[in-house]
Amino acid sequence: MRFFSDNAAPACPAVMDALVAANRLDTAYDGDAWSQRMDAAFSDLFETQVTAIWVGTGTAANCLALAALCPPTGGILAHRYSHIEMDEAGAPGFYTHGAKIMLLDGDGAKIAPDAIDAAVGLVRKDVHQVQPAALSVTNATEYGLAYTPAEMAALGERAKAHDLGFHVDGARFANAVVSTGASPAELTWKAGVDALSFGFIKNGGMNAEALILFDKIHADNIRRMKKRAGHLSSKGRFAAAQILAMLENDVWLDNARAANAAATTLAEACGKERLVYPVEANELFVKMTADEAAAIRATGFDFYDWAPGEVRLVTSWDQDMDAVDKLAEAIRSL
Amino acid sequence: MRFFSDNAAPACPAVMDALVAANRLDTAYDGDAWSQRMDAAFSDLFETQVTAIWVGTGTAANCLALAALCPPTGGILAHRYSHIEMDEAGAPGFYTHGAKIMLLDGDGAKIAPDAIDAAVGLVRKDVHQVQPAALSVTNATEYGLAYTPAEMAALGERAKAHDLGFHVDGARFANAVVSTGASPAELTWKAGVDALSFGFIKNGGMNAEALILFDKIHADNIRRMKKRAGHLSSKGRFAAAQILAMLENDVWLDNARAANAAATTLAEACGKERLVYPVEANELFVKMTADEAAAIRATGFDFYDWAPGEVRLVTSWDQDMDAVDKLAEAIRSL
Amino acid sequence: MRFFSDNAAPACPAVMDALVAANRLDTAYDGDAWSQRMDAAFSDLFETQVTAIWVGTGTAANCLALAALCPPTGGILAHRYSHIEMDEAGAPGFYTHGAKIMLLDGDGAKIAPDAIDAAVGLVRKDVHQVQPAALSVTNATEYGLAYTPAEMAALGERAKAHDLGFHVDGARFANAVVSTGASPAELTWKAGVDALSFGFIKNGGMNAEALILFDKIHADNIRRMKKRAGHLSSKGRFAAAQILAMLENDVWLDNARAANAAATTLAEACGKERLVYPVEANELFVKMTADEAAAIRATGFDFYDWAPGEVRLVTSWDQDMDAVDKLAEAIRSL
Amino acid sequence: MRFFSDNAAPACPAVMDALVAANRLDTAYDGDAWSQRMDAAFSDLFETQVTAIWVGTGTAANCLALAALCPPTGGILAHRYSHIEMDEAGAPGFYTHGAKIMLLDGDGAKIAPDAIDAAVGLVRKDVHQVQPAALSVTNATEYGLAYTPAEMAALGERAKAHDLGFHVDGARFANAVVSTGASPAELTWKAGVDALSFGFIKNGGMNAEALILFDKIHADNIRRMKKRAGHLSSKGRFAAAQILAMLENDVWLDNARAANAAATTLAEACGKERLVYPVEANELFVKMTADEAAAIRATGFDFYDWAPGEVRLVTSWDQDMDAVDKLAEAIRSL
Repeated sequence: MRFFSDNAAPACPAVMDALVAANRLDTAYDGDAWSQRMDAAFSDLFETQVTAIWVGTGTAANCLALAALCPPTGGILAHRYSHIEMDEAGAPGFYTHGAKIMLLDGDGAKIAPDAIDAAVGLVRKDVHQVQPAALSVTNATEYGLAYTPAEMAALGERAKAHDLGFHVDGARFANAVVSTGASPAELTWKAGVDALSFGFIKNGGMNAEALILFDKIHADNIRRMKKRAGHLSSKGRFAAAQILAMLENDVWLDNARAANAAATTLAEACGKERLVYPVEANELFVKMTADEAAAIRATGFDFYDWAPGEVRLVTSWDQDMDAVDKLAEAIRSL
Repeated sequence: MRFFSDNAAPACPAVMDALVAANRLDTAYDGDAWSQRMDAAFSDLFETQVTAIWVGTGTAANCLALAALCPPTGGILAHRYSHIEMDEAGAPGFYTHGAKIMLLDGDGAKIAPDAIDAAVGLVRKDVHQVQPAALSVTNATEYGLAYTPAEMAALGERAKAHDLGFHVDGARFANAVVSTGASPAELTWKAGVDALSFGFIKNGGMNAEALILFDKIHADNIRRMKKRAGHLSSKGRFAAAQILAMLENDVWLDNARAANAAATTLAEACGKERLVYPVEANELFVKMTADEAAAIRATGFDFYDWAPGEVRLVTSWDQDMDAVDKLAEAIRSL
Repeated sequence: MRFFSDNAAPACPAVMDALVAANRLDTAYDGDAWSQRMDAAFSDLFETQVTAIWVGTGTAANCLALAALCPPTGGILAHRYSHIEMDEAGAPGFYTHGAKIMLLDGDGAKIAPDAIDAAVGLVRKDVHQVQPAALSVTNATEYGLAYTPAEMAALGERAKAHDLGFHVDGARFANAVVSTGASPAELTWKAGVDALSFGFIKNGGMNAEALILFDKIHADNIRRMKKRAGHLSSKGRFAAAQILAMLENDVWLDNARAANAAATTLAEACGKERLVYPVEANELFVKMTADEAAAIRATGFDFYDWAPGEVRLVTSWDQDMDAVDKLAEAIRSL
Repeated sequence: MRFFSDNAAPACPAVMDALVAANRLDTAYDGDAWSQRMDAAFSDLFETQVTAIWVGTGTAANCLALAALCPPTGGILAHRYSHIEMDEAGAPGFYTHGAKIMLLDGDGAKIAPDAIDAAVGLVRKDVHQVQPAALSVTNATEYGLAYTPAEMAALGERAKAHDLGFHVDGARFANAVVSTGASPAELTWKAGVDALSFGFIKNGGMNAEALILFDKIHADNIRRMKKRAGHLSSKGRFAAAQILAMLENDVWLDNARAANAAATTLAEACGKERLVYPVEANELFVKMTADEAAAIRATGFDFYDWAPGEVRLVTSWDQDMDAVDKLAEAIRSL
């Protein structure tokens, strides 16, 4: 019973069915019927006209957005523990041709509006220093916290005040939507977001994510950069089809609800003392001695040690609730 | 009945079955059981120890190889009509950080050893001129010609003489293997090839290609560049599984044989007068007046106009042989 | 008596005097009095408001302009024998982050308007092919030909029609101005030029060139890129002072007149049969057998062999006219 | 009487004389007699065989070295307040094609060996995280502290242990040599340094710095990168000549001694309470209220406010000692 990573989970049935249904002759690249439906499907979801571009990984989605929002000479404000800084092998530097990530602090990988002002305030407005050009936040954060619409709007307001493009890494956007009860629109363009990496893979997809652009200006340039980065799959219908299948019938929301519910069950078992952060998505960071962790593992559960005296539990769209209940029980009985 | 592009064809049954079989919990990225079997499977096929790395597109495979073989300050000898020059949106320039493609001529997008000597000979050996560092050829070529082992060896010999890394774009490598009757080894490392982009997608795959490295030195660097380019899919087992499924039971060869056979049938119908190049893979470039093309299209066949008085026909792994026979008949009766 | 290169010539007296005069305490970088006078001085010369930025080399001037006019995903139309293609070690690829130089032909390194149409016409307007974004021509060309205002206007008209930025490499712009009798304005912005690399070094400067921007939009971005490329000299007053000294009292014109006059004297001695191209600046490409070249060298003259049966002679601002007359005589007596 | 910046100072007489002496016809680029003498002159100075390459700015010297020592996928350990991080407009990102600067802390911009271990220890050895590849320290630091040979050796030992290339930004290397009394060798290759940006401009030069390579392997690649970055000045003799002139007769040491002595005089006037850091080169950071600063300025002295309650004083090679004594007196009488 593994609580390692939502990347380890399989693809959900709707995705597998969609791949089979899409497995017929159609136009190559993104000229097929599925790819052509992307914009409309996401425009419905976001209640405004958007451009939706499929790519194969969250890193590609993030970095294409950042490259559109930040020139090579510019800087990207992001959290010290953000995925783009910590776990993308320097991909933002590659895609932006050397723009600098400017690191912000904040508990649980969450950025406060004041941190933006402070960081911008430190930069002299001359040619010797790199000027901030974009802000990137992750919702839900890398430590499982969700920004509310009000929090996003406050960030967007600061971004606008400092003339920063605003990108959201939504690898777990679905979990944030479910957790906050907010609409996709409220968490994005209504708060001033310019581009969203809308994650599907961790949430039951196979190998496609969506990059959502709320500002049509960037689309052509991003399409070129995507091709130039080798991300224009020649049988693109398989990417579009799996994404559309998750939008239909709210599969993406159902999957995220399941993962979040499992996390909530575990969070209740842990209690406030054990939790390093509030649980607002599908990740838990739990204080646990090495002996305690060993005891739990001995009963058949797998998970990562995160730091001395701290473990990480991640729940997935398909998490078996019996296993969750058993793990909750095991934690309670420590 | 479409003869547009092998990219338009569906994925073959072995691939679809493999995706279903791989759809279970496993380690993320390339830590899964399938990814771990890649090196061994391709080492068997190539009769030598190789490193095999899955990526999502041929452009990514080509450009990772080129970035490993050519520094930013260097040049890549390639054909004027090569895919990397014509149809990858400048991706080699992105991945190599600005290396220059140095264009060679040759009928049917095929490069002769003399052309390499001539191009290298034109370059002054000083810091003012870009120095050639790599050679990239496509087998089968973009115009459907196959290099034989002897031809490849002659190219490899020139590459070695000029200290050039040697890359093969094998988007249609399977078609070349079938066409020449040569072994994968003979067409690659035995001829001095350092890296091969081994195509599966046009040949019945869904969205995975293999980059084969015959020189172990490059592997670590390429793995980093792959991640940095956003090509390390988090559920990589789906990439590895589809590739392995095509290797098993020689699916890749059967698929290529089917496509080549269809092309051969059409080539015979065309006759030498109509064919712009010999047909040695699954593409035909056929002289045809606009009226003739219209007449054939009127009977239900779709294909691209390629140039004034010239059309392109591409056959796929799943080409319906009845349709092929009908098209052959239609061409004969022009 | 050397006719190798105008880069081998010394700096002219006005430049040396200016360096001495500028050798006092002033604000660092480009905050000094001299740098601050650049815009006004060049605006006077060009009869319109321009931005003038000093840099240390022609390569830097060219590539900063190209990087401003062409995105990484774009292409630069330039002559096959242009300096940016042949002799800058791939610098355009570095500064533009991998944009492609698209090569045009034309006698004497001169580009005809039709060649632009033809090159643009070959490109499909899709994401698979690199789209031309800029045109770069050299005036006077690498083979000593000068574009007239009418020729420049025709090029500018094609650039505008195809939405191309228009850059001029003016390493020998002074020679072209003298040769054509045109005003700097006629050869640049009146013909649609967006940016000019205005060369001073070959014409008697020490180590400063001017990048002239006719479109104010680009200036801020270019200043950042210049700093980021390590070209913002901390004692910039020495760069600005030498450039201003050459503008004052028409030193730049006098120097170019002297070099062109020397070339004209030699051209007359050569006669039409020997000249590969008309002599419209300070370079001559002269048909000469190896024996003839040896005979001339034996009388004390140095110059480069350019091709079999062809030598290159370059005259400089300080060319000794006695030596020129002697060389002319030697050529006549062949 | 200005204490703003050593970049504001003029060039010293030896440099001006050398420019005049070099102002004659010679081979272009770095084929001239002066450039050819660089390696030998610096090999003498460093008591080992080195390669010495002139460039126009310290940013170019730093970034060429970093690009040689760190791949695009790697990281550079440097101080949070280092010049490469703070004041080079992201140039390291440009030259390295997007490598990441990994920030270390330490008083006075000085790095302790432990900080290196700590930073390296935080990085997982996988493809998801950027791996440190180089260490860059500034000697004297941006806050006027000098590393001793023992301190440098300790850093070099940590660099070697972690397989890091080791670069020194020596914009004020001369001041560090004078301050520590160490030999150039002891502060560089004897301590494991691979490359040194040897600054001349702040110390009385005009527009040339030297990049010293202690490892011959990198030289060819760096020469190509230098040309590609537009830093191969066509009349390179003027760069080489001014550097050589400062080496001869120990001009570089005399100039640094003068600047350091002026700083020492001021430091003594300030006393320990006012000094933010010990004064070990030619910069002072002095605690001073706004009123105090205004009082001093009223007596004719100019300098920068650095932080609330703190000013910066920089002394130059040509600092008038009367002015220094007057400023010392003014500070004492606060």
